[in-house]
Amino acid sequence: MAHIDLGFDEHESPGIVGLMRYRPETGGPLSALAEALLVAPNSLSRGERELIASHVSALNDCAFCRDSHAAFAAAQLEPGMILVEQVRAHPETAPISAKLRALLAIAAAVRADGKAVTEVLVDAARAAGATDVEIHDTVLIAAAFCMFNRYVDGLATFAPTDPAAYAESARRVVELGYVAH
Amino acid sequence: MAHIDLGFDEHESPGIVGLMRYRPETGGPLSALAEALLVAPNSLSRGERELIASHVSALNDCAFCRDSHAAFAAAQLEPGMILVEQVRAHPETAPISAKLRALLAIAAAVRADGKAVTEVLVDAARAAGATDVEIHDTVLIAAAFCMFNRYVDGLATFAPTDPAAYAESARRVVELGYVAH
Repeated sequence: MAHIDLGFDEHESPGIVGLMRYRPETGGPLSALAEALLVAPNSLSRGERELIASHVSALNDCAFCRDSHAAFAAAQLEPGMILVEQVRAHPETAPISAKLRALLAIAAAVRADGKAVTEVLVDAARAAGATDVEIHDTVLIAAAFCMFNRYVDGLATFAPTDPAAYAESARRVVELGYVAH
Repeated sequence: MAHIDLGFDEHESPGIVGLMRYRPETGGPLSALAEALLVAPNSLSRGERELIASHVSALNDCAFCRDSHAAFAAAQLEPGMILVEQVRAHPETAPISAKLRALLAIAAAVRADGKAVTEVLVDAARAAGATDVEIHDTVLIAAAFCMFNRYVDGLATFAPTDPAAYAESARRVVELGYVAH
């Protein structure tokens, strides 16, 4: 059960969805940030950005964010969840571009500590074709999920175990993004 | 030097200020989040919220955020920087309210891992008078600074060492907040 009284059944609005409903004053900027990072036009595809989000959330062992963004990535990448699971298990050998692999390594470093992002990691991403904006956005996506993961787990929110719940959210997020329209 | 080419002298816009100037698409939501967490009306004072931000940033060893928010806290709490330094050195015995001490303990747990926020910590905060919204906001401030710290350090931005730079920012933030008016 959540550490605070949300004022509604947490099963209706699991994870961060319930927290945004509980506190719309902060939910607004958080949704806008997710939209700017994961949905807005970008040279990294929406699927690639969701994969970075899911990868960091898996490393942080945050079930709600890991499973949500894995579903969102799978819905927007070929061949879907198989690829997401390959990346989670073996990021070094999964069948992704050299650029995305180098960006995932930067994201994993950010997760541990901002200062773990070395020039070697940045140079490797650049050598694989990453632009400065892509490196910037990767660092901020990884940093943002270090926030979202701690927010969701720090308040002990409910995370569904049924994959169908996340697949339903994926349909909504792919179509509408993170900001209510 | 920053890991990416910001397009201007990093000394002009140190830390997150330069990153927001480089990428206003994400800077907007980040400023709005800081405003909602640290400036908007709240039963926790602005000084108390800045103290939580500075405390987490010090634990994450992020010089720019630690020194910025220490200056912002000192400008809004009596007796200023002496108190901020007492809290940094000995949070368990510094002369602050029992409620703020319990909230700082929750913030330190969030910094380590969301799942480190135990019922014992939450119950202690509640027993010291913290409301659910205050517990929520403390968790989110701490989580947000785990993002801001990784963002600033993950891109190796410049942090001034002269305290006068932070005191000048403090005057601006106290008067105007985090969103350009």
